[in-house]
Amino acid sequence: MGKVVLIGAGPGAADLITVRGACLLAEADVVLYDALAGKELLDLCPNAIKVPVGKRSGQQSTAQPAINQLLIGYAQTHKLVVRLKGGDPMLFGRADEELAALELAGIDVEIVPGITTAFAAAAATLQPLTKRGIARSVAFFTSSSAPELPDTTQLPDSDTLIQYMGGQKALQTAELLLAQGRSPDLPVIIIENCSLPNQHIERLTLAELNRGLSDRTGPVLVMIGEVFASRSKK
Amino acid sequence: MGKVVLIGAGPGAADLITVRGACLLAEADVVLYDALAGKELLDLCPNAIKVPVGKRSGQQSTAQPAINQLLIGYAQTHKLVVRLKGGDPMLFGRADEELAALELAGIDVEIVPGITTAFAAAAATLQPLTKRGIARSVAFFTSSSAPELPDTTQLPDSDTLIQYMGGQKALQTAELLLAQGRSPDLPVIIIENCSLPNQHIERLTLAELNRGLSDRTGPVLVMIGEVFASRSKK
Repeated sequence: MGKVVLIGAGPGAADLITVRGACLLAEADVVLYDALAGKELLDLCPNAIKVPVGKRSGQQSTAQPAINQLLIGYAQTHKLVVRLKGGDPMLFGRADEELAALELAGIDVEIVPGITTAFAAAAATLQPLTKRGIARSVAFFTSSSAPELPDTTQLPDSDTLIQYMGGQKALQTAELLLAQGRSPDLPVIIIENCSLPNQHIERLTLAELNRGLSDRTGPVLVMIGEVFASRSKK
Repeated sequence: MGKVVLIGAGPGAADLITVRGACLLAEADVVLYDALAGKELLDLCPNAIKVPVGKRSGQQSTAQPAINQLLIGYAQTHKLVVRLKGGDPMLFGRADEELAALELAGIDVEIVPGITTAFAAAAATLQPLTKRGIARSVAFFTSSSAPELPDTTQLPDSDTLIQYMGGQKALQTAELLLAQGRSPDLPVIIIENCSLPNQHIERLTLAELNRGLSDRTGPVLVMIGEVFASRSKK
C-alpha cells in the first residue's frame, strides 16, 4: 500500500513550489494534477504517470468522488501518489473531501503546503497585505457558485479583503462594501494569471470596481484595502 | 548598485522555502536573516556574508530603521542582497517599511513569497482552513504589542480565525469570541514551532482556551474555527 501526498503547486510559476514539493514530485510514481499545473511543473516529474483531473471554470473536469477513487486506486498499486493542487491544498482546495476518503480507505496522507495566490500577488505588486497602523488583519474568501451558499452576502470583516475566483462576482463585493460605508476611493488590485508570463495587473478604486470589470479568461484574484494604496503617490 | 530580494523563508523547516528562494539564496552575496532562520536554512547560502538582525520577543533585535540602513548599505556595495524573513514577507513582516526605504534610495527590490505558518500548520494537522458549507472565509490577525493599536478589541469577522504571535494574548481572543456568542465548544488548535523538530500541537475548545494556556517559549499560532473539528470524531 502506497501513500498519497497532497502538494501545493503554488500560484503557477514552476519555481514557486517548495523544495519539499519539488523533491517529492521527482520521486512520484503517479501525479494527479489540476488545470493550473503548466508544462514546467509537470517537467518536475518526468518519470511519473500523469493524470489530468483539471478543474477550470467552464471546462470539463473530473468529479470530486471520481478523483477520490483514483487516488485510492493508485495508492493501492503504487508507492508514492502525488495530488498536485494549485496554490495551497488547504485553502479553497476541497482537501477535506480527499483527506476523508483517503483516511476512510486506510491510506497514509501527507500534505506539503504551497504558496497561495494572494502572497504571490503581494510579491508581484510589491504591496504588503498588512501594515502597522493601517491593516492588521486580512481575510481570504471566495465567491462560491454552490447554490446552497449565500453568495457574497456575508463578507468577512477585515482590514484587507482578498477574493479568490473573483471575476464578475467582485462587482457584488464592491456594491456590498460601498453599502457598508467603505470609501469609494478604497484601492483595489485585480491580478490575473498571477506569477505566469501572461500575468495582468490592474489598479482601480472600489467605486470603479462597482462600475464594472473587463472580462478576463484566466483565474482572477481581487485584493481590496487601504494597504494597497500606491506608495509612490504618498 | 545591487538589488535587494526579500525572501520568505517559510515556517522554519529548510525545505519549505520555495525553489526560487533557495536558488537566490545560493547566489546571494549578503543575507540579512531573522531569528527564525535555523542552521539548515543558512546552509543554503554557504558563500554569503550572513548578518543576523533577528527579532524574537524578549530578545535583543536590530531596530527596523537600522535594518533598512544595512540593506541600503550592502546593496550599494554588493550585487545580490537577500533579506530572509520568516513565513511570508508580506504578512505581518513590516515589509512596507523596508520597501519604502529601498525605493526612496533608488534600489531595485524583488519579493519571493514564502509559506506562512498557517498553511504549514494546516498541513501538519491535516486540517484544512476552509471547507464547503462550514467555512468559506479565513482571517489572519495578530495581537500587536504596539501601544497605539487597540489590542484584540477589533477582531476580524470570519468563519476561520488565525491569530499570529498568539500566546497569552489568545485568552483575550477567546473571551471576546465567547462574548460575541461563539460556541464554547468551538475547536481550537495551538501550534508551537510549526514544521520544526520541536513542533508541538495542542487541541482544545474555545472555553478551554479562555481558561488558560500553558506557557510556550517558541512562536505560537492559534487557529480557531468549526473547520478544525477532528474528522475522526465524526
